[in-house]
Amino acid sequence: MSVSTAALDQSVRAPLPVLGRDVTVPLVTGGEVTYAALDYAASAPALQRVWDDVAAYAPYYGSVHRGAGYLSQLSTDLFESSRRTVAEFLGCRAGDQVVFTRSTTDSLNLLAAALPAGCEVFVYETEHHASLLPWRDARVTYLDAPRTPGEAVEALERALAGRDPQGPALVCVTGASNVTGELWPVRELAAAAHAHGARIVLDAAQLAPHHPVDIAGLDVDWVAFSGHKLYAPFGSGVLAGRADWLQDAEPYLAGGGASRKVARRADGGVDVEWHTTAARHEAGSPNVIGVHSIASACKALTEAGFDTLVAREQHLVSVVRAGLAEVPEVRVLSLFGDDAPRVGVISFVVEGWNSSHFAAALSAEYGIGVRDGLFCAHPLVKTLLGGGPQEPGECGAPEAAPGERSLNAIRVSFGAGTPDEHVERFVRAVKELVRDGARWQYRTEDGRCVPDRGTAQV
Amino acid sequence: MSVSTAALDQSVRAPLPVLGRDVTVPLVTGGEVTYAALDYAASAPALQRVWDDVAAYAPYYGSVHRGAGYLSQLSTDLFESSRRTVAEFLGCRAGDQVVFTRSTTDSLNLLAAALPAGCEVFVYETEHHASLLPWRDARVTYLDAPRTPGEAVEALERALAGRDPQGPALVCVTGASNVTGELWPVRELAAAAHAHGARIVLDAAQLAPHHPVDIAGLDVDWVAFSGHKLYAPFGSGVLAGRADWLQDAEPYLAGGGASRKVARRADGGVDVEWHTTAARHEAGSPNVIGVHSIASACKALTEAGFDTLVAREQHLVSVVRAGLAEVPEVRVLSLFGDDAPRVGVISFVVEGWNSSHFAAALSAEYGIGVRDGLFCAHPLVKTLLGGGPQEPGECGAPEAAPGERSLNAIRVSFGAGTPDEHVERFVRAVKELVRDGARWQYRTEDGRCVPDRGTAQV
Repeated sequence: MSVSTAALDQSVRAPLPVLGRDVTVPLVTGGEVTYAALDYAASAPALQRVWDDVAAYAPYYGSVHRGAGYLSQLSTDLFESSRRTVAEFLGCRAGDQVVFTRSTTDSLNLLAAALPAGCEVFVYETEHHASLLPWRDARVTYLDAPRTPGEAVEALERALAGRDPQGPALVCVTGASNVTGELWPVRELAAAAHAHGARIVLDAAQLAPHHPVDIAGLDVDWVAFSGHKLYAPFGSGVLAGRADWLQDAEPYLAGGGASRKVARRADGGVDVEWHTTAARHEAGSPNVIGVHSIASACKALTEAGFDTLVAREQHLVSVVRAGLAEVPEVRVLSLFGDDAPRVGVISFVVEGWNSSHFAAALSAEYGIGVRDGLFCAHPLVKTLLGGGPQEPGECGAPEAAPGERSLNAIRVSFGAGTPDEHVERFVRAVKELVRDGARWQYRTEDGRCVPDRGTAQV
Repeated sequence: MSVSTAALDQSVRAPLPVLGRDVTVPLVTGGEVTYAALDYAASAPALQRVWDDVAAYAPYYGSVHRGAGYLSQLSTDLFESSRRTVAEFLGCRAGDQVVFTRSTTDSLNLLAAALPAGCEVFVYETEHHASLLPWRDARVTYLDAPRTPGEAVEALERALAGRDPQGPALVCVTGASNVTGELWPVRELAAAAHAHGARIVLDAAQLAPHHPVDIAGLDVDWVAFSGHKLYAPFGSGVLAGRADWLQDAEPYLAGGGASRKVARRADGGVDVEWHTTAARHEAGSPNVIGVHSIASACKALTEAGFDTLVAREQHLVSVVRAGLAEVPEVRVLSLFGDDAPRVGVISFVVEGWNSSHFAAALSAEYGIGVRDGLFCAHPLVKTLLGGGPQEPGECGAPEAAPGERSLNAIRVSFGAGTPDEHVERFVRAVKELVRDGARWQYRTEDGRCVPDRGTAQV
């Protein structure tokens, strides 16, 4: 998957313009530097194009579906055309529904609430919490972390073979890991699921920003993703796919918009007739700006071309991986090994370093924003860190004192808006920190790792 | 509550600047006109101040709670300070929680999911669907529409007296009707609820944009409201109040952010330790921009001063009511009568008119955006329209052919951004339409009422 720098022409080298590209931040060592946002896997900056589309629409904002005024009609058209844009972006089949949610977490909780009675769920322990935890009312089989894509398929087939083939079942799998960035064999897993009469939902939170997602081509039943990782951080997400379970389920939220007709009964109760379209699960006034921003991002990525975006991102991946490989103290976390295809999400630990302090130093001394912690994927990170029984750590909280073995990891992640300079600075910073140590000392305060201003090492 | 025009000085007369104030829309009769957004009760335009705050923050957007970078720290601070701003805006008590949701509907569905086992719910049939319908798992007592605020209190006391005083109970009441605009006796209802050992949640969706809401002063247990009606249409809402039921409830969504620790068990299952703070119900990446926009609106309204805002809005109410009173064909819908205090939300029907056609004419011939329909409050509107058994209507869909008795109503609503000219134009338009008839004919197409371009009456 690596792409040589020479093979990239200038148009491919140029990142897509994003908000914040000129933001400068203060350094603890003095002066300011352009902020290097390398936490795309948590939240990506808005594409400039997305922001421009939101800004152009904002004065025309109106209530959707229910207003008689011009701006309400315009907003309704925009909202429903956004639904069509997302369906096209995902390659939806005829009859698929696109439901707007608030995030991937929300999308998967919606699907969890729509499972048929008695549905079994199969999920790898390697999933992040958004796809690991929503299945509270189902019988869940947790599959151990596989060490190759092939092992993943085999483990799923074994698990599914043991189930009652008459009952409903759902497999939930992430398309690209939010910890290792590695791609999962989605098409093969979908085939295995369907061969055993199960359905499959693809968590595309980390995949959709980096790769085309083709719901029909992958033959998955549902896809979930978030706007805020897709350069559209305005509070919306998507669940798209088969209509039948969604139509048959109780409305996700009860309220206006989901209800077609409501009437008092003679006995004093209330009868409700619910919509059977996507509106069934979209009660309340929709987040029109959020939905519009997602459609805008889908269009912008499609127009930029995923061939170009993937080529450019793979160049950045190769720069980071090559740089980290030159530092023996760095251990990159991986399930599937060095040659596994991956997106721009790379996690690692540094021997002798507390990961939180390392991340704090990247921020305070280099203006680089990464994430440290367990990345809301505790079982996976603990498996990857190894080292026997550990107390599970909190999201983002430093767990070990300086000098102790880190129970957290550091994650660097990037995408369509990342200039080469950001990853080059990151590689340089890692090398300097490992070679020279931090110039400041760091301490934990209110759960954050912050520079201790009295303890500069310079 | 009416305020004479003379009593309003210029500063009071000036609306707060909102987005879209210069937007023009085409008229079916030719030319363009500035759009008069008179559907605030559905969705209000963004305050210019809110937009400016969002635009200023957007380049600094980053993941909250979990990132080590400068922008993540800044975004986390902004997110948590927004929580404090909202708590202050609502006059929260020590120990109250402010949970960010997507809307009032979402807030009340969250509270419904947090009811203790066996909780009884008491709700008036006059509630809109967001507050009428979420209580799906509870035993619900629906109270008939009262005709005075006093009747409302008496009906609640009677209903509560009949319940088992040992079990948990919740009363849900709207502060200002989304149909009549009338204020409900919240403080008295809270006293009645508490006297009978019940709790009370205030649906402030229509109240908070127009009146100060003091959770401690009103002595309500929870308050819910939406950003999109509070001049902050970026997909966020609020549930604020008592922490105990929320802390004890299952997390609203299961996923990252809500979970403190997650670990595989020896038996292959998964153990989760959930947060007990507001984060428990905020799984997934929060909508930082939406939350920031709500805090911005809270500050802007507080700084403008509710005394001023109420005085100005009451002036607009008096203009509309006086104008409508001069048209005998107009019947204003009211539960509590002419003298009842109310916010800028007024619904009415026009004798001889299909409400959808009337609303379409206001839009097409005058550039005025109102709403027609049953306003997602079907039982209330049917009670107010009277006339015996009716087929319940759909939200916003015209139900009667031209010339038939309308089963829908027309709603005009306004607020802090509304200039006098909008309500004056509205009053003039109603008078002209009733006197002269529409200049165009209207027909229903795809569920919308649209001008029939071949049938101008001029």
